[in-house]
Amino acid sequence: MALIVQKYGGTSVGTPERIKSVAARIKRCRDQGQEIVVVVSAMSGETNRLLALSREVSSHPVPRELDVLLSTGEQVTIALLCMALNELGCEARSYTGAQVHIRTDSVFNKARILEIEEQKVRDDIAQGRVVVVAGFQGVDQCGNITTLGRGGSDTTAVALAAALEADECQIYTDVDGVYTTDPRVVPQARRLARITFEEMLEMASLGSKVLQIRAVEFAGKYGVPLRVLSSFEEGEGTLITKEEEQQMERAVISGIAFNRDEAKLTILGVPDQPGVAYRIVGPIGDANIELDMIIQNVGADGTTDFTFTVHRSDYEKALDILRQLADDLGAREVEGDDKIAKISLVGVGMRSHAGIASTMFQALAEEGINIRMISTSEIKISVVVDDKYLELGVRALHSAFQLE
Amino acid sequence: MALIVQKYGGTSVGTPERIKSVAARIKRCRDQGQEIVVVVSAMSGETNRLLALSREVSSHPVPRELDVLLSTGEQVTIALLCMALNELGCEARSYTGAQVHIRTDSVFNKARILEIEEQKVRDDIAQGRVVVVAGFQGVDQCGNITTLGRGGSDTTAVALAAALEADECQIYTDVDGVYTTDPRVVPQARRLARITFEEMLEMASLGSKVLQIRAVEFAGKYGVPLRVLSSFEEGEGTLITKEEEQQMERAVISGIAFNRDEAKLTILGVPDQPGVAYRIVGPIGDANIELDMIIQNVGADGTTDFTFTVHRSDYEKALDILRQLADDLGAREVEGDDKIAKISLVGVGMRSHAGIASTMFQALAEEGINIRMISTSEIKISVVVDDKYLELGVRALHSAFQLE
Repeated sequence: MALIVQKYGGTSVGTPERIKSVAARIKRCRDQGQEIVVVVSAMSGETNRLLALSREVSSHPVPRELDVLLSTGEQVTIALLCMALNELGCEARSYTGAQVHIRTDSVFNKARILEIEEQKVRDDIAQGRVVVVAGFQGVDQCGNITTLGRGGSDTTAVALAAALEADECQIYTDVDGVYTTDPRVVPQARRLARITFEEMLEMASLGSKVLQIRAVEFAGKYGVPLRVLSSFEEGEGTLITKEEEQQMERAVISGIAFNRDEAKLTILGVPDQPGVAYRIVGPIGDANIELDMIIQNVGADGTTDFTFTVHRSDYEKALDILRQLADDLGAREVEGDDKIAKISLVGVGMRSHAGIASTMFQALAEEGINIRMISTSEIKISVVVDDKYLELGVRALHSAFQLE
Repeated sequence: MALIVQKYGGTSVGTPERIKSVAARIKRCRDQGQEIVVVVSAMSGETNRLLALSREVSSHPVPRELDVLLSTGEQVTIALLCMALNELGCEARSYTGAQVHIRTDSVFNKARILEIEEQKVRDDIAQGRVVVVAGFQGVDQCGNITTLGRGGSDTTAVALAAALEADECQIYTDVDGVYTTDPRVVPQARRLARITFEEMLEMASLGSKVLQIRAVEFAGKYGVPLRVLSSFEEGEGTLITKEEEQQMERAVISGIAFNRDEAKLTILGVPDQPGVAYRIVGPIGDANIELDMIIQNVGADGTTDFTFTVHRSDYEKALDILRQLADDLGAREVEGDDKIAKISLVGVGMRSHAGIASTMFQALAEEGINIRMISTSEIKISVVVDDKYLELGVRALHSAFQLE
């Protein structure tokens, strides 16, 4: 019998009516002979309601107590879902993170899962029960309640699936799968039947926010097949698996990711000495600014140009730091541009296919789009362009690589 | 240093503002050198909100899951109160029933406390922390969340006080103590400085609903001094203790309790044989009807009259049962009256004072109030009168025993 871990997010369980329809879906899977373990989030809006309460009593809520507070959100959902399941004659039992021993470290508000004692869950499954576990939460070695941070429910589901060696971990959301690109930009965008963990990671980190990146990493590490599905419509969704299993049918390009919230900074004419990259990147990191693309070119006159991108909201702060650095480093000039966007081609197939880059650059050139930066990895080619060209560029590439 | 367990009910923590003022009160006690353990209920309205949610997903919510759901109410309060305390610079730590090992039996929705492992609480107190514990909830031996039933937070507080051998258990409510009688009936009613456990039990079961009767029993059993106080006004409240400690200043009568929701039933002319009381009381109990006063008189002709009172809402059902019984028992007649009320004098002092009953009957006679039934115990005399005389009777007795 197939053992499936299903995860339903806040929107999917946002009202009593929706909880009842999730229960009906679980019942159908059960009737088809599947063994089901369910992970749920707090009902949509609930976490924000609790956060608002906390702000009314404290300007800086103690992290330990914030976790005690927020963890009630999922606890409400597991109880309601089990009631709804039992109402349908489907025996079910709920567990909080602490009850099912989802052991985490003690970093309140963003704890990491260390281990899961899954025996209790196995016992219930053996007795024919559906097990419903509170996502997003755990317990540290002292018995303190912890939370995994926003979106941590995906990680709970994958960790449970790994611990139980489940056949599949299904993430139910409000979209019906992973697409070749954002359908709002390219109406012809197509749902992918399959994608590899690596591709999904590149897609996710580049702005296709279907799945929590941590959960994908976790699934990849433990080889848990992940499936993204809609909780509102029937369908196969998108299966995210290891590469081997799908080599045969490999498309060259899986999808086109993009990000319009970027800004680009360049420090020009830096004397080219060992350690210069660190002397630039260090202060930026110290200011809690995350760097995305980093490119360094060596010039002819013993100087180098160093370019990187940051989130647009960090642009001014990064520019200030860079201007100070320019003096210290004896650099010639600092430039910046916060009207840029990044477009990335993602696909494990590109490793074995030549000419992907040239097709990409040609497609953009034919639309008159100037490429400002290029960065490549094994399964990804990213370009930075003026942000006004974002939609045009994505559509051109979607068509050039025949993703429809 | 005095160790005090304080319990705040739902109204006292009903809003973030009120939680902040409870925190300020606790801080003041702490600053005066008291060691404080706090037990809290769910914010007022929260339990009903959760019950309404449960009814939306299930017509008969599974008891186990109902407890998982309802226990989130107190968990929210403990977190918010700890945040508010820490905000005031008063270090505090929260515990759910499960975390502090309030071990109960497995009777979901109305579990009973078996034991408390109080070491964790002692450790925190030793480190100068205020400990905040979720009332109303516990955990059974399998790790299931249980609740003690409505009002169980009082019991949690008393049980914790007993386990910690606290100097006092303070119950903060929306009244400022226990009164000689209901001030809405007798405006001259006076707050009692002290009362014994036994008197409080008689008062509580007779309708002065200040404290949960189970909590008073518990406190009496373990000799935990209980104090009822207002969470909105300053004051000494009423201390409920063992009798010895206050013998000297003993008043004869402590208070006058009453109950207007009673109905009286009589079965007349029952052949007086051994076992007849059981043959009457048995079927009434089997129908889940609770009996209050029971009186039997032997008549002259070898028959007996048997009278008892029940809650008014059970009157019709009890009457039907009694009419069937009358035939089986060969009784002469069945009578009933649902327009009655009960008035009770309560006081441990009456044991050593003669003439209490006659003073009582005289006072009622002077007002022309006919007594329909009389029942006495060691520390209580109850009379049943027509319900229209209730207020008049209570006022007459309050004055006759100089309780003002």
